Amino acid sequence: MKKRTLSVLSMILSIFASANGQEALFGNQPILSPEIHGDKSVTFRFLAPNADSVQVTGDFLPTVKAESPFGIVDAPGKAHLVKDGKGVWSYTTGPLNPELYNYSFVVNGLSSIDPNNPFLIRDVASVTNIFIIGGEQADLYKVNDLPHGTVARRWYDSPGLGMDRRLTVYTPPGYEANPKTKYPVLYLLHGAGGDEEAWIELGRTAQILDNLIASGKAKPMIVVMPNANVTQDAAPGAGRDGYYKPQFMAPETMNGRYEANFIDILKFVEGNYRVIADKKHRAIAGLSMGGFHAMHISRYYPNVFDYVGLFSAALMPREDATGKVYADIDGSLKRQKENGYQLYWIAIGKTDFLYKANQEFRTKLDQLAFKYDYKETEGGHIWRNWRIYLAEFAPKIFR
Amino acid sequence: MKKRTLSVLSMILSIFASANGQEALFGNQPILSPEIHGDKSVTFRFLAPNADSVQVTGDFLPTVKAESPFGIVDAPGKAHLVKDGKGVWSYTTGPLNPELYNYSFVVNGLSSIDPNNPFLIRDVASVTNIFIIGGEQADLYKVNDLPHGTVARRWYDSPGLGMDRRLTVYTPPGYEANPKTKYPVLYLLHGAGGDEEAWIELGRTAQILDNLIASGKAKPMIVVMPNANVTQDAAPGAGRDGYYKPQFMAPETMNGRYEANFIDILKFVEGNYRVIADKKHRAIAGLSMGGFHAMHISRYYPNVFDYVGLFSAALMPREDATGKVYADIDGSLKRQKENGYQLYWIAIGKTDFLYKANQEFRTKLDQLAFKYDYKETEGGHIWRNWRIYLAEFAPKIFR
Repeated sequence: MKKRTLSVLSMILSIFASANGQEALFGNQPILSPEIHGDKSVTFRFLAPNADSVQVTGDFLPTVKAESPFGIVDAPGKAHLVKDGKGVWSYTTGPLNPELYNYSFVVNGLSSIDPNNPFLIRDVASVTNIFIIGGEQADLYKVNDLPHGTVARRWYDSPGLGMDRRLTVYTPPGYEANPKTKYPVLYLLHGAGGDEEAWIELGRTAQILDNLIASGKAKPMIVVMPNANVTQDAAPGAGRDGYYKPQFMAPETMNGRYEANFIDILKFVEGNYRVIADKKHRAIAGLSMGGFHAMHISRYYPNVFDYVGLFSAALMPREDATGKVYADIDGSLKRQKENGYQLYWIAIGKTDFLYKANQEFRTKLDQLAFKYDYKETEGGHIWRNWRIYLAEFAPKIFR
Repeated sequence: MKKRTLSVLSMILSIFASANGQEALFGNQPILSPEIHGDKSVTFRFLAPNADSVQVTGDFLPTVKAESPFGIVDAPGKAHLVKDGKGVWSYTTGPLNPELYNYSFVVNGLSSIDPNNPFLIRDVASVTNIFIIGGEQADLYKVNDLPHGTVARRWYDSPGLGMDRRLTVYTPPGYEANPKTKYPVLYLLHGAGGDEEAWIELGRTAQILDNLIASGKAKPMIVVMPNANVTQDAAPGAGRDGYYKPQFMAPETMNGRYEANFIDILKFVEGNYRVIADKKHRAIAGLSMGGFHAMHISRYYPNVFDYVGLFSAALMPREDATGKVYADIDGSLKRQKENGYQLYWIAIGKTDFLYKANQEFRTKLDQLAFKYDYKETEGGHIWRNWRIYLAEFAPKIFR
């Protein structure tokens, strides 16, 4: 009887939720997609009896060459789904390597998310579905049954930028339960078009750290993910500007204001968290534009960070930069070298469009006899690599 | 020169991001949608030169009657977009009342999100776009330029349910800066199909509280948003079960296990936050199934909460319920009454399918001479009402 009552209630609630436009929207798609099979192949399905063409595009498909204003570039491939007698289109991949993948459909030439997969991820202004093929490094991206850190969205006062601003802070498991323990801090910086949501969402920072800390591969640490868009108080939709279509690159993100005012973030973190406030226990790393920031911040404050990570960093020369942050780059690198540091880690993919800029930066460092570790991987300028780099960098720091 | 370099860099980055399938997905839709005009009318646009039909559906449109297994119900209306010479379909509403609205498109009969609006909200397994028309109560849903609380996703140990579980905690502005101040706590419970993300995302809890606290209308308080799905450790996608298509109603959510083990949540909160751990400074409220839980928890622990809020509560009689939590409902309500409380607040919409169940519960309370305040509003079983109820309830508590 009890079960029946609950079941009836559930049905009633479903119907009414449907009537309110919530379940209704995708209620016409009671199919499973994506379906991950035992051999790690994946079937995508899309119900569209009247469509002429349904394709899937995603980063698990071989890339194709495509024309662009900058020449021929790699573009994500597409695969055609095939329709069955019930109007359900489907496509099954071969076995996929462990990874967090994203995808979307193209229905009669128009992009569409997968209405059967409510897991989406925003990258700048684009939203795609995601799924994980487990195993190897991808197990670090899963929520496993082990102690979890806390993820807080918190606001700090930035006198230098003249506003309260939002940042994301990961505190490791045990932070709250051990009120006398102090922790090292990794400052983890996003790329152009990103914000304080990028590393925690696209980068799986909390999952990677939880997993590495539980296995003893990384030290318990605090990870601070700030927002580099100095004209924003917070990520699009999370701040005073409300909802708007984010641009790929916000204004003033590479003119020195962020680097010059990074001290506000340091002061906030060290005044509000139980940190070990010395150089040995501070690390800074960033991807793409965030690698540019990590490089400049770590030499502009040349005796603050013992660990620096440049992930696919946007290190092209900018001799035109005249802001005080960019004055005397070589001199400040020399000071950073003389002050000493534990690790300066550069990682780049072989097909990254910033590959050459990174090699030129290495040459500069070599000329300065500035020591660094260098990691070259497959692939290009993609989140897949940045998750891998974080998972490699985090175990190397605070040792 | 500087600007030109940045601009070239930005273009390069855009192209390569595009090549990696990120910007590319919606790069073919460089149009503005939704566009909110000065008179609060809204234009929706969708680029689809070859489509035969594009409609918009959302909760700002008049409802229509639709058939269902339970008879005729209200369903969200649709409006047809009209195509211009460039293949851009558009539709402009009349002036809309202040509110947070959701919507999606229907393209050739298939649901689609708006590819130009990256702001989406998940409700159970469905994802829709959102926008806000400001003014009146809807200004409470915006991020305004005032002090902001912290929102943390944190894990607690539930011995009763045998696992670590995730919850969302809002701490008010000033919580961290005033380490000797203790705060009251509102426990805010989600409905069927929801989880610890529901109130913070769909319910705009942080924005409502930030705004009410800044204006002095609500006392600074901690708001705890737990997960009632006792077989889950966390929201779909945020827990050990990984990504899966959420059901409308998880198993065992109304069989007494949640209520009986709510003590684990209380202990965690009172052991880990600076709270005033007495009845005067505890409130519990919930929507739909969460209203059912709030009713049962507050009488099962009949001397713990001084403030109870039942928002569109699922209060239908369940004489079949045999779990110990549901034993002696009248007796425990009498004990709750004898122990005393400050506010027992019931709110329901006139067209809510739970309207009758709420009137029957009021009759029961009247028979027991159990005092309560009653609020009847327009509308039905929808988030719009629950945000309004929270914004009305929060100022009434801890006075």
